Amino acid sequence: MTKRLNRRVLLVRRPQGMIENHDFQMEEGTVVRPTDGQVLVQVRYLSIDPAMRGWMNDVRSYISPVALGGLMRAFGVGHVIESHVAALPVGTAVSGIFGVQQFASIDESEVTVIDDESASLPLYLSVLGITGLSAYFGLLDVGRPKPGDTVVVSAAGGGVGSLVGQIARLSGCRTVGIAGGAEKCNYLKEVLLFDEVIDYHEQKVNVALRTLCPNGIDVYFDNVGGEMLDHALANLARGARVVVCGAVSQYNNEGKPYGPTNYLSLLVNRASMEGFVVFDYADRYAEALEQLSEWHRNGELISHEEIMVGLENFSAALARLFGGEKIGKLVLRVD
Amino acid sequence: MTKRLNRRVLLVRRPQGMIENHDFQMEEGTVVRPTDGQVLVQVRYLSIDPAMRGWMNDVRSYISPVALGGLMRAFGVGHVIESHVAALPVGTAVSGIFGVQQFASIDESEVTVIDDESASLPLYLSVLGITGLSAYFGLLDVGRPKPGDTVVVSAAGGGVGSLVGQIARLSGCRTVGIAGGAEKCNYLKEVLLFDEVIDYHEQKVNVALRTLCPNGIDVYFDNVGGEMLDHALANLARGARVVVCGAVSQYNNEGKPYGPTNYLSLLVNRASMEGFVVFDYADRYAEALEQLSEWHRNGELISHEEIMVGLENFSAALARLFGGEKIGKLVLRVD
Repeated sequence: MTKRLNRRVLLVRRPQGMIENHDFQMEEGTVVRPTDGQVLVQVRYLSIDPAMRGWMNDVRSYISPVALGGLMRAFGVGHVIESHVAALPVGTAVSGIFGVQQFASIDESEVTVIDDESASLPLYLSVLGITGLSAYFGLLDVGRPKPGDTVVVSAAGGGVGSLVGQIARLSGCRTVGIAGGAEKCNYLKEVLLFDEVIDYHEQKVNVALRTLCPNGIDVYFDNVGGEMLDHALANLARGARVVVCGAVSQYNNEGKPYGPTNYLSLLVNRASMEGFVVFDYADRYAEALEQLSEWHRNGELISHEEIMVGLENFSAALARLFGGEKIGKLVLRVD
Repeated sequence: MTKRLNRRVLLVRRPQGMIENHDFQMEEGTVVRPTDGQVLVQVRYLSIDPAMRGWMNDVRSYISPVALGGLMRAFGVGHVIESHVAALPVGTAVSGIFGVQQFASIDESEVTVIDDESASLPLYLSVLGITGLSAYFGLLDVGRPKPGDTVVVSAAGGGVGSLVGQIARLSGCRTVGIAGGAEKCNYLKEVLLFDEVIDYHEQKVNVALRTLCPNGIDVYFDNVGGEMLDHALANLARGARVVVCGAVSQYNNEGKPYGPTNYLSLLVNRASMEGFVVFDYADRYAEALEQLSEWHRNGELISHEEIMVGLENFSAALARLFGGEKIGKLVLRVD
């Protein structure tokens, strides 16, 4: 086997506020060869996630920060191209935290075998991956929607949000999506079958929520934080559940995040606000993936992936992610 | 029966920020006589509660606002002095929402019979009343402490807080109280047997919490809101429960309350923040009062009441309540 080159994206500067191009650096070196119990994976697609912004900060969180000068962390899917593991022969499709690089040598225990015949690879980064699992467990386990509940989701056009709205509909709930721009809002209503949509570019969200949720919000699934969270808190139904999945409006702020000034609505409405991390549900992934696959196969759950191309566009992909223009799950194809 | 005069405190102005004397007005008039199904209660003691501040605002809440020009709402205890209800003979000790007045004509269904032989009247406004019930259900049902948990309570010298800390200790938890001033802190530690006390006049609360809760806070019972809540959020253990009982630091603010900027700690720590209103537990009051009485009788749960005297001091009592100097439950004796 000839010596393979590996291109890797390193985090060389912790972003202050918005991510900038020079926070990252492309490095080219030889592939680190897999050892006993490892496989070499050729990475095909990488998941571009809002959570990445948090991983770049040097603070205690649910996962350790990316080291300065180290490989940027990313979920990916790819194929085994060299194997020292009998159960993972060359050609096996796998997913895992491969990092922003072309080739990853990785322990057997760190990869999950996926079936690239029954679904295309990018789906394992969206509806059949962490994105789908986050929507599934965040909504069903933390939000605990009951049939007839009004479920509101922010960043409803995003990877997680678009699935949350659909899973809520499939659970018998009335769904209200909040998103920016007519194109996205039309898509949510016409294609993803949200009952109502609020375009925050055009409408006052607090007024729209009051009008569209006359009996209050039973479940608010929050991906954005900031004032949107405050508007939702101001419109809770009694016993409401607020699911804290993310706060994309706050990740690029310098200084402290915006604290929800309406949090006392939790008291008035006997409501709860709860955070979750999808990794905690690992022992139930199989159950969730079976249900997500079935819904997806039947056409009841639509997954939309937007695919950008080339490792050199990693930073541009993040900019697009936070720019709020894309629809569905953003994925980077690795050539 | 000679015509009885009744002194009543009316809310004549909605306070902006801090309560002022001229927000209230004393009115003297004849007693409204009870009709069929009613009793006339001579009010002996009134409960002075932080929640009163909220009742004065013209906003939707868990209870309707006090009407402008109307009788100020208050919990009280007293004796039946005239009865049109067979089950409530003259002399019966009762509690209820009597309002800030000397005499209340009130429906049978609105009063609770209390036993003024087994415990003195003011106790039915503290450990054996709404205060004790709030501590009991807020801590045990919303906070769900497990033996060995670290339970932190703010306004730990207050009516609710001082009971929460003791009930947590009786539930096998390690207790940390936050209060202002050496006298209060000594009392909490020496008399009420808190394991640790933080004096926010003298110590940096965030640093003290980090030191005293090296494994994080499992249950934070919040009575104050503001920066204190933020300090607690910054020190949560995984799976922590934050109980939102009140926000006394925010009630007298003009403008919006302080939003907890560290709320994303709920995500990182898979934690929840939940509000409650004690009235929702009415069908379990008996169970709770039996337990509270038993603990109190055995000397395991100490209740401290500070008693001020005279309806004309209602506004001064509120000022003392929000001044943060008193220890335990503040009660106003009605002469």
